[in-house]
Amino acid sequence: MEVGMRRQLEERESKIMLPNQSADEVSHLAVDIGGSLIKVVYSSSNNNNEADDKGKKSSNDCVGIPNGSSDYPVLCGRLHFAKFETSKINDCLEFISSKQLHRCGGWHQEASPHDKNIIKATGGGAYKFADLFKEKLGVSLDKVDEMDCLVAGSNFLLKTVHPEAFTYIDGREEYVQIDHNDLYPYLLVNIGSGVSMIKVDGDGKFDRVSGTSVGGGTFWGLGKLLTKCKSFDELLELSHKGNNRVIDMLVGDIYGGGDYPKIGLSSTAIASSFGKAISENKELEDYGREDISRSLLRMISNNIGQISYLNALRFGLKRIFFGGFFIRGHAYTMDTISVAVHFWSKGEAKAMFLRHEGFLGALGAFTSYKSHGLDNITTH
Amino acid sequence: MEVGMRRQLEERESKIMLPNQSADEVSHLAVDIGGSLIKVVYSSSNNNNEADDKGKKSSNDCVGIPNGSSDYPVLCGRLHFAKFETSKINDCLEFISSKQLHRCGGWHQEASPHDKNIIKATGGGAYKFADLFKEKLGVSLDKVDEMDCLVAGSNFLLKTVHPEAFTYIDGREEYVQIDHNDLYPYLLVNIGSGVSMIKVDGDGKFDRVSGTSVGGGTFWGLGKLLTKCKSFDELLELSHKGNNRVIDMLVGDIYGGGDYPKIGLSSTAIASSFGKAISENKELEDYGREDISRSLLRMISNNIGQISYLNALRFGLKRIFFGGFFIRGHAYTMDTISVAVHFWSKGEAKAMFLRHEGFLGALGAFTSYKSHGLDNITTH
Repeated sequence: MEVGMRRQLEERESKIMLPNQSADEVSHLAVDIGGSLIKVVYSSSNNNNEADDKGKKSSNDCVGIPNGSSDYPVLCGRLHFAKFETSKINDCLEFISSKQLHRCGGWHQEASPHDKNIIKATGGGAYKFADLFKEKLGVSLDKVDEMDCLVAGSNFLLKTVHPEAFTYIDGREEYVQIDHNDLYPYLLVNIGSGVSMIKVDGDGKFDRVSGTSVGGGTFWGLGKLLTKCKSFDELLELSHKGNNRVIDMLVGDIYGGGDYPKIGLSSTAIASSFGKAISENKELEDYGREDISRSLLRMISNNIGQISYLNALRFGLKRIFFGGFFIRGHAYTMDTISVAVHFWSKGEAKAMFLRHEGFLGALGAFTSYKSHGLDNITTH
Repeated sequence: MEVGMRRQLEERESKIMLPNQSADEVSHLAVDIGGSLIKVVYSSSNNNNEADDKGKKSSNDCVGIPNGSSDYPVLCGRLHFAKFETSKINDCLEFISSKQLHRCGGWHQEASPHDKNIIKATGGGAYKFADLFKEKLGVSLDKVDEMDCLVAGSNFLLKTVHPEAFTYIDGREEYVQIDHNDLYPYLLVNIGSGVSMIKVDGDGKFDRVSGTSVGGGTFWGLGKLLTKCKSFDELLELSHKGNNRVIDMLVGDIYGGGDYPKIGLSSTAIASSFGKAISENKELEDYGREDISRSLLRMISNNIGQISYLNALRFGLKRIFFGGFFIRGHAYTMDTISVAVHFWSKGEAKAMFLRHEGFLGALGAFTSYKSHGLDNITTH
């Protein structure tokens, strides 16, 4: 992760300690194995655990639960977050093994030997890699439905963690106080490799109403082919320095510099993403990698914002929460999505983002443990 | 244009002769200058005019108006269609000049010298290239609004030409009889460099309700960068032979081969366009150009189909007509759009295509001549 990205991420993260937990309780572990990334969430009562992660390539971010009433027998310690590329699943298995995370038990009681060999897992990889987990770690994956987990994770964050949700307008994050009694319904847009759009009506009450295959995997995959960049973060970093007007065909390019006011399009609006590449006598190598990355990011973010808005409109949903690892707290991504939702809704709908955007599914799987210790907070 | 494409196009075109027109009437000319292509429509009373076009790189397709009542003083002869790349506008100017098309007058009366120096023109290029037309041909472009023209062209075709509209399902074109009294409202989706979505309520009554920058210019521009192909048609031809599963991440790739039945996604559904490129240790050159082209075409066609459906749904429109040069009568493009509309609407909405899809704007500009000779047919 580049320095710039890391700083951005750190700025958005905050650490909040967890209330009561007896010192001898061990960790829970849940995994969300997507098409591109494996997201890992685990809890520990040892605040110094982090030190073990030093030097790891994956980022380990910490988050906790706001101080609730200490009358509730909830966990004390930390929730840890880690991610790995799905194609490097062995790194993930080694990480789990080195920390003995798969040897964790239940909360508040002696775990049975059976429980110790089960990990809650979601995402398609919970099916695809079940045998590998069994073989390498000797654990079974207890599969939890992906959509169930996304919704559970999102509801958990929105009801429990503050500040969690924010708008991103004109380069400024503004945290939003969520009224728990007025949370539903909302549209959850999870941008992973692909994109799922879920109408959420309550705890466990939801409907996946739409989605698109043009998501984070498209940005990363197409971007890799076009720029030869080595990682998603490198590609994001490139986009930061780019100018999409070099490759995108703008309204002004077609109209000889002018606007097309009759239909509300300014000269700088993108008429055709990558459209300028048609007429210019240039090959791929003649374009700046930064500019390509920027055009790609804008195309995909804008498209997701538009389809999300159209689905929110369809069901009369005023609030759209965007999650998933595609966003990565990246200013330009959030800005484009926000502008798209604002533009298409004529200011009626608002895009909101989540600080722990990438871990909705893993958090949802985590909360599916019977005694995860978070339920008292979530209902509090 | 490759042989395969040409054949496809020819199969879809038909020639219908035009009724009464006195032999000494000369041509009208209208142009639609888009971001990527210039579309030219002109009429002639000389049925042998075509022979002049032999050897031209651009395709000149003929179409006429079905035999109406000969009581109507409408044109007799042919409507000619031609296209040029906007970046090669000089080819277009030479074509017009060589045929003296810009010296045309009005119908049914002696044209005034003033009229002879005016050409109806639409598209952004009518602004951008006005000076060039003046300088090279000595004519002024009489600019007609782009959306007005698209709608006029579409209404003209749907009400006048039969067969014009067709569905494309399971590889079969099926022509649709349009009831003139039950034509409106409909959604017109014009896929040029960018995409415009227009709710049409009647002659001259419409609203551009949406659009997307991910259109034909994106397919061509991105496709050119990725495959080094030289033309749109070459890229389309490539896609014909490709397999999108090589690069797209399918639901089965994530789920270890299985479906995700709970949300209605089969193992072969695309989870993430170009998503497979993330994890494979391959560079651009390691992928087949055919497969890249196919994935790109499917991504864009599917996306347009989805956004179109969402807009049709929003306004309760059952019929969506797709026009614009992106489609080019290409089987796979129409199939993907049809499947997308069918999938997202759960069979409620139908995608329909137009035989003269690429010339809606130019035809609309043509019909904006006061005495174009088509109005009697259109109201008949």
